[in-house]
Amino acid sequence: MRRTPAIKQALPTRDRILEAASRCFSKHSYDATGLRDIAADAGVDVAYVHRCFGSKERLFAQALAATARPDRLLTGSSDSVAQALAKQLFAHDTDEDINPLDIIVRSLTNPDAARVLREFIVQDFIGPLATKLEQPALLRAAVIAAFLAGIGILRNVLSIKPLLETEGGQLEKLILGTITTTMHATTTSERGKAPGKRRQ
Amino acid sequence: MRRTPAIKQALPTRDRILEAASRCFSKHSYDATGLRDIAADAGVDVAYVHRCFGSKERLFAQALAATARPDRLLTGSSDSVAQALAKQLFAHDTDEDINPLDIIVRSLTNPDAARVLREFIVQDFIGPLATKLEQPALLRAAVIAAFLAGIGILRNVLSIKPLLETEGGQLEKLILGTITTTMHATTTSERGKAPGKRRQ
Repeated sequence: MRRTPAIKQALPTRDRILEAASRCFSKHSYDATGLRDIAADAGVDVAYVHRCFGSKERLFAQALAATARPDRLLTGSSDSVAQALAKQLFAHDTDEDINPLDIIVRSLTNPDAARVLREFIVQDFIGPLATKLEQPALLRAAVIAAFLAGIGILRNVLSIKPLLETEGGQLEKLILGTITTTMHATTTSERGKAPGKRRQ
Repeated sequence: MRRTPAIKQALPTRDRILEAASRCFSKHSYDATGLRDIAADAGVDVAYVHRCFGSKERLFAQALAATARPDRLLTGSSDSVAQALAKQLFAHDTDEDINPLDIIVRSLTNPDAARVLREFIVQDFIGPLATKLEQPALLRAAVIAAFLAGIGILRNVLSIKPLLETEGGQLEKLILGTITTTMHATTTSERGKAPGKRRQ
């Protein structure tokens, strides 16, 4: 649901442009979205968008970062991070805010947008998450990122039925269990005999 | 890499159309691909494609099924299925064949294609996989489907660095461990205290 124009006008112009960009990129592909559309949606001149953000690619990067905000989920111990990550999969079930997943899915196949997405996922999610994990930390964090992206896409984009459960049920428990295992599971061949066993 | 025309001509016409459709849908979005393009690629008349397959949506469904063939991976015990699923993530590392993931990713945001994808994932992957799992079997199978899709997208579409490892290394072990855990992890609140623990 769009904010009413009255509330939109109350935001500083730069934030209004970022919000308009997030909304446009979440509804249309990267290719189909122009700075002109975003400017119109924000109610500003396209020249001002250019001055503020430079290029579509840079505006896309900033709109993605402003919408996704993975830093909010990555504080505290690995256990509390696991819980926050599992929970956020259910956070966009209302239509009231923009789901960053929609931005990601609509832009995956454009090479410029894919480069932005790759940098964002590696620098803003995998890197910070890896600081909380045991070795191979980057690999574990990347597998968790992939898991969350996959659940998000099959649940929120494709509406795959068994995944439409609400928060707090078996799905959330299973997701939490899978994230926790990926954080702690053994990966070397000496320890490889019980791949699902959690190290304490 | 495309087959040479000489090899292509040797295939039955119907298979040649399916292969052309898979190739077109793996390179272009569902919206951007027309039956005319597929007919031209297969070297047949577009009227013949219409007669054989009816609509773009039905051709898309059949091309997806012919390319993905999840039945090949879902035979044997749950342990051997887990191994086959982990291994197939590395199967399309050469350019020589069509990665069904490309077809999925390019079509996610078209409502008609998304409906085909949803039915395919539920009926051809989640359903058959669930027959091998303990309860909640459909939920476990759906979470595994999401995990594989996520790894495929972050690895093969976005080229996220920690996931570019080759077959047989720590990544494959970690993926296998995660799939195995999702197959067996406890999900009820009585058992919920050790979410990563594998039941034997």
